[in-house]
Amino acid sequence: MKQTLHFIQYLRSSKGLGFMKKYIITTLLISIVFLCKSQSPVSYVNPFIGTNEMGHTYPGATVPFGMVQLSPETDTIQYSIGQGYIKDVYRYCAGYQYSDKTIVGFSHTHFSGTGHSDLGDFLVMPTTGKVQLNPGTTDNPESGYRSRFSHDTENASAGYYSVMLSDYNTKAELTTSARVGFHRYTFPESTQANIILDMVSGIYNYDGKVVWSSIRVENDTLVTGYRQTQGWARERTMYFAMVFSKPIRNYGCRDDAKVVYTDFYRKFNTTKDFPEMSGRKMKSYFSFDTKAGEQILVKLALSSVSTEGAIKNLETEIPHWNFDLVQKQAEESWNKELSRITIEASEEKKIIFYTALYHSFLSPTLFMDVDGKYRGLDHADHQAHGFTNYTTFSLWDTYRALHPLFTLVQQKRTSDMINSMLAHQQQSVHRILPVWSHYANENWCMIGYHAVPVIADAYMKGITGFDTQKALDACISSSTYAPYDGIGDYMKYGYVPADKSSNGASKTLEYAYDDYCISKMAEKMGKPAIASIYAKRSEAFNYIWDSSTGFMRAKKSDGTFQSPFDPMSTEKQGFIEGNAWNYSLYVPQDHLKLIALHGGNKKFISHVDSLFNVKLDEKHFAESEDISAVGIIGNYVHGNEPSHHVPYLYVFAGAPWKTQERIHQIVNTMYHNTTEGLCGNDDCGQMSAWYIFSSLGFYPVCPGSNEYVIGSPTIDKATLNLENGKNFTITAQNLTDKNIYIQQIKLNGIPKKDFIIMHEDIMKGGTLEFVMGAKPKKLR
Amino acid sequence: MKQTLHFIQYLRSSKGLGFMKKYIITTLLISIVFLCKSQSPVSYVNPFIGTNEMGHTYPGATVPFGMVQLSPETDTIQYSIGQGYIKDVYRYCAGYQYSDKTIVGFSHTHFSGTGHSDLGDFLVMPTTGKVQLNPGTTDNPESGYRSRFSHDTENASAGYYSVMLSDYNTKAELTTSARVGFHRYTFPESTQANIILDMVSGIYNYDGKVVWSSIRVENDTLVTGYRQTQGWARERTMYFAMVFSKPIRNYGCRDDAKVVYTDFYRKFNTTKDFPEMSGRKMKSYFSFDTKAGEQILVKLALSSVSTEGAIKNLETEIPHWNFDLVQKQAEESWNKELSRITIEASEEKKIIFYTALYHSFLSPTLFMDVDGKYRGLDHADHQAHGFTNYTTFSLWDTYRALHPLFTLVQQKRTSDMINSMLAHQQQSVHRILPVWSHYANENWCMIGYHAVPVIADAYMKGITGFDTQKALDACISSSTYAPYDGIGDYMKYGYVPADKSSNGASKTLEYAYDDYCISKMAEKMGKPAIASIYAKRSEAFNYIWDSSTGFMRAKKSDGTFQSPFDPMSTEKQGFIEGNAWNYSLYVPQDHLKLIALHGGNKKFISHVDSLFNVKLDEKHFAESEDISAVGIIGNYVHGNEPSHHVPYLYVFAGAPWKTQERIHQIVNTMYHNTTEGLCGNDDCGQMSAWYIFSSLGFYPVCPGSNEYVIGSPTIDKATLNLENGKNFTITAQNLTDKNIYIQQIKLNGIPKKDFIIMHEDIMKGGTLEFVMGAKPKKLR
Repeated sequence: MKQTLHFIQYLRSSKGLGFMKKYIITTLLISIVFLCKSQSPVSYVNPFIGTNEMGHTYPGATVPFGMVQLSPETDTIQYSIGQGYIKDVYRYCAGYQYSDKTIVGFSHTHFSGTGHSDLGDFLVMPTTGKVQLNPGTTDNPESGYRSRFSHDTENASAGYYSVMLSDYNTKAELTTSARVGFHRYTFPESTQANIILDMVSGIYNYDGKVVWSSIRVENDTLVTGYRQTQGWARERTMYFAMVFSKPIRNYGCRDDAKVVYTDFYRKFNTTKDFPEMSGRKMKSYFSFDTKAGEQILVKLALSSVSTEGAIKNLETEIPHWNFDLVQKQAEESWNKELSRITIEASEEKKIIFYTALYHSFLSPTLFMDVDGKYRGLDHADHQAHGFTNYTTFSLWDTYRALHPLFTLVQQKRTSDMINSMLAHQQQSVHRILPVWSHYANENWCMIGYHAVPVIADAYMKGITGFDTQKALDACISSSTYAPYDGIGDYMKYGYVPADKSSNGASKTLEYAYDDYCISKMAEKMGKPAIASIYAKRSEAFNYIWDSSTGFMRAKKSDGTFQSPFDPMSTEKQGFIEGNAWNYSLYVPQDHLKLIALHGGNKKFISHVDSLFNVKLDEKHFAESEDISAVGIIGNYVHGNEPSHHVPYLYVFAGAPWKTQERIHQIVNTMYHNTTEGLCGNDDCGQMSAWYIFSSLGFYPVCPGSNEYVIGSPTIDKATLNLENGKNFTITAQNLTDKNIYIQQIKLNGIPKKDFIIMHEDIMKGGTLEFVMGAKPKKLR
Repeated sequence: MKQTLHFIQYLRSSKGLGFMKKYIITTLLISIVFLCKSQSPVSYVNPFIGTNEMGHTYPGATVPFGMVQLSPETDTIQYSIGQGYIKDVYRYCAGYQYSDKTIVGFSHTHFSGTGHSDLGDFLVMPTTGKVQLNPGTTDNPESGYRSRFSHDTENASAGYYSVMLSDYNTKAELTTSARVGFHRYTFPESTQANIILDMVSGIYNYDGKVVWSSIRVENDTLVTGYRQTQGWARERTMYFAMVFSKPIRNYGCRDDAKVVYTDFYRKFNTTKDFPEMSGRKMKSYFSFDTKAGEQILVKLALSSVSTEGAIKNLETEIPHWNFDLVQKQAEESWNKELSRITIEASEEKKIIFYTALYHSFLSPTLFMDVDGKYRGLDHADHQAHGFTNYTTFSLWDTYRALHPLFTLVQQKRTSDMINSMLAHQQQSVHRILPVWSHYANENWCMIGYHAVPVIADAYMKGITGFDTQKALDACISSSTYAPYDGIGDYMKYGYVPADKSSNGASKTLEYAYDDYCISKMAEKMGKPAIASIYAKRSEAFNYIWDSSTGFMRAKKSDGTFQSPFDPMSTEKQGFIEGNAWNYSLYVPQDHLKLIALHGGNKKFISHVDSLFNVKLDEKHFAESEDISAVGIIGNYVHGNEPSHHVPYLYVFAGAPWKTQERIHQIVNTMYHNTTEGLCGNDDCGQMSAWYIFSSLGFYPVCPGSNEYVIGSPTIDKATLNLENGKNFTITAQNLTDKNIYIQQIKLNGIPKKDFIIMHEDIMKGGTLEFVMGAKPKKLR
């Protein structure tokens, strides 16, 4: 790309070229650029995938695993205390719904694909004319600072977003470095061009969520501040430093909170040109004169530690005003990361694949200043020694496929993420690893101690760079913390009794799997006593198997099963975000035993079949959370996580062709290059990581085992460009829409007779060749 | 003291002494200790002076200029938003009123003598029986955790406080180091002994003042946390670390704020034994079993930076559980500071004198961790390099006599205080020195840039240890900051026009004096151009002299005086906390000109006489702020600051005997060894510092001039034990209640004929001998 651009510049600067010549050459070069670009993975990213309805992705600008996610908010619905869960708040987990007609502004922090939310820090919005400090309503945008927009004017690519804000005839462009959001606003001629900074606006907001906010106008271009919120994160403070490319003409604020001490002595008008603005409901504006087409640029750096840290981040990462350069660097950083897997497939599949990879590389997110300082779980400031600190660990989701994907193509970052989780554990007053943590907080969402499989899986795969003894200790500490989520009872009864803790059946199953991971890790570390204890614990699933119904089932502390039993219901049955039908297939650590419990291969296959074939009635469908109507096949819920491994289970029961069918069905019906192209919450990349693995042809059914189960490849060719310098190439010969069945597998040229590929086989580099056909075939 | 104690221990350990012998010797030694103690300055401190009505002092434990002021709250009245100023809130500026019958608890931060307030951080209260988390009411103490008490059981000395909490039959004892409050509670037998930690309670509280608070139970004896308030200080955060001498049996909390995210997933009961308690209205308790007479000790360390800083302060300052030792160290530190002036006087006078000196040495207060870290005005954390950081600068009050007192007997601390103010200025977004600053905040109370006289006075007196160029720059920056309090108009018009800024006449007079200080400083620094500019500015008082009425008077921007004019009124006349009558005597930098304006010595004396002799009518008395009924002589308001220099003005008009009369009158009628012994707010020690100077026999009428004006000594002998190793001894021969007039003055044996003594004369060491008599006498 770089060379091509130089070539264009060279040609353009040549003397003696006539207008037509120039035109032809330019056209030609644009075509070349397009071709060059069309070959780079980054050109296939479509950030709009999943931005409508259930995907909960955002279209804005970010860099891989970046701290800043600078993206538009199309609405800012609030919780009302006492009214509980509000559907509309849920819709705006990522701040954006593609179907909306207005943009409220651009904020700097967003989760990707979550099913609960927070963030939306430091909403910036350019306007013209009279300063308005309320966002206004969708129906009446004039009532506030928001603007109408058209998707015709909207563009998004990896690291870049732009839109025309039609109410203000102002173009907004966004790009970013890791810690600094970069805005470029092209204004019309105006004697009153404004940039709004709304410290109240936020995602999953409610009246009073902002505990405090503070803005300090350091000089006529530099503004610093912070805000502290009490939301999903109980105590979250983010600092910023914001710099304008043009001196502020005048500025001001309004605090909608009624407080005693604003302007207490009336020495100043604290609402106008007073450089210390603070309060609970603080909205501010900065005004300018603009000529037609004049650009005002804004850089806003984040820090979890201090405004000083934010300034340092700003000065280190973007010490200039070259927006285009930053955009190019963002694009290059994406290209570098996405090139870890190069593929051959149709253009459409490439878009879906690389967007899935893009979504997989959004989080966990960087949470550290350029000098290594970060706010810890203990709300104290820490220095990261020898690692990069990350946050946003949605572990119940991501331990399944996202972190295993990282063990293949993000090994260095895996090590950093483990160090981040170990730091969290050290800073935890409970001394446990993260459950669902973000921004120096544990939000306790979902169940399990699934940091354990992430750590054990990495350890088993030979990933280094963290203290393994500390890691094992942290796993043990997390798995024995009695006050948390029924663990005390789990240790006492061998399972989590339904009458002692909610979702006891799910917890029992997931704890048992996590314990398997500890057992494996301890075994490899030469600690047989610990390994043995946890191996025993990993058998806990047996306790809750009800042979009379043929399901896993919630058991009470008196040893009897909970009644009434509805295996299709996800409510009050002891399961979380899944029903007994699905969860009865969750024993990743011991499929032989699972199949035996189900009565052997035939009955097991029949159960898995029933999952796909049963028709969910309306009541039970309504209970299924976080998914769209297309996210479900019978009772198999792909839009949520508990069954993500299920299509692969046929392999263990000797029916791999059934896996092959289902993988192609899911890949082809549930992932699209559309704004509704994700059938459920992307959950920080778990849904996307499932796609990456499955389209490559294998899946980590049991992280910690070092095994991948072969499904069926859906792309023609893929090469994993590994960090150790090796390449591992997967080819799918004869793959068509109909040729979905594996006829032959060769690993490094040698035919394979099973459907398991080991992690070390991949890491050594080599080739995995599939021959595909239209009919199931037994390997020989 | 130390040697005496060693001697007692030695004797007590001697073998062969019979019981009677032991008894006699012990009795003898107690007498010796008593005599020794009775000779030590600390034994004369009565912390109850000023604790009733207007003094606004607190009786609790603190060390000189200490960060912790651990003192009982006898009520916790709140502001109600919308109701404005409430008299009862004002009564509790220091948390304590002697006339009250109940104690709410013991908090760790208090101002001494202020007329507005804040603080009251981390209220701790021991109780027994059912846990109550509301303070309850005075009328019905059973409705909350407060307790009745009797003054019969109450003791207070420098660094120590104790009381019997009769409702709980629990004795509370308090002592402290600089940064750590130390509690000793002696409980009755109880299965439910509680220690309440109320994070909501505070001084000058209002519903919502606590923005956020957080408590973390680190283990079964260590608790850390912080709270953030929005009050007089806009954004104030204090951290603590609290350690119990006995493991906590169980604990819990209640948050009275309605928030969405408390216990969001109901995984824990966050109100019981859950180690992370946080919220806006958080009250917590820690419970124990106690035997009869069992003592539970609590150490609570403060930090402005972090809980880690608080832990470091705790471990460094009190790494043990020896309460008595800390009490002794506190007493010794007071004795050391109070011994900077040793006096001979009646026992009663000694009590008043040393309590005044004690009150003078309470603030500014230490604001820095043991490692030199402190929170700055920019809300960032800073490291103090080469100085000790102080806060609580009530400069409109204290520039008059308190800081000048420090230039004599606290020179090292003066240097530290100046460095602290310079750091404040550097951190200020306005780039100005403190006005009234506390705890990393500017509260903007009162007027003037009176950090300037503090700095200039110290510089003129040769105090070093700060960057003089930076200091001058800071003074210039503060005096030219146009947006602040009419300074822009002051520079434009030469005075602060009454129609442009409130209290314009007071501001004009005080700015002019501050400008004189800059002029003197610049002159000494060899900067004649600057000196000349500020010398000109220092004449601003001329603009507002109204020769037609013979008063200083508010002038409008059109050059006319404001009407109607009421020289007795303190409201809407352009003066703050004073009237024209008083303020017309405020030109400390040029008394000759002032006297000339008044029409010469005779007319001037007559005006000063009238101040003392006029009868204030009820309306005008009611307007006088911050004083008790005895704090006023005619229209001379000693209970507030603007006239503190006035009794000394007779000297300049050739009538020193009138000064001598008034000094004795004020000293004898307005300072007492009673709980109402201060006739107005002590104002961080200004009232007390006036007493110290005046009883010694001289007063700094014009700080910055290096001159002290001789009044009339009221004690027989005093020695200033100076930091340079020199001693300066003042004697008042023949002093009696009637012999109040100076007959002769000898400086180092040489008779003096004027009533001015220079700072350098004192610093050289030597003697100042007064001979007193019953009738006025001219010096010869």
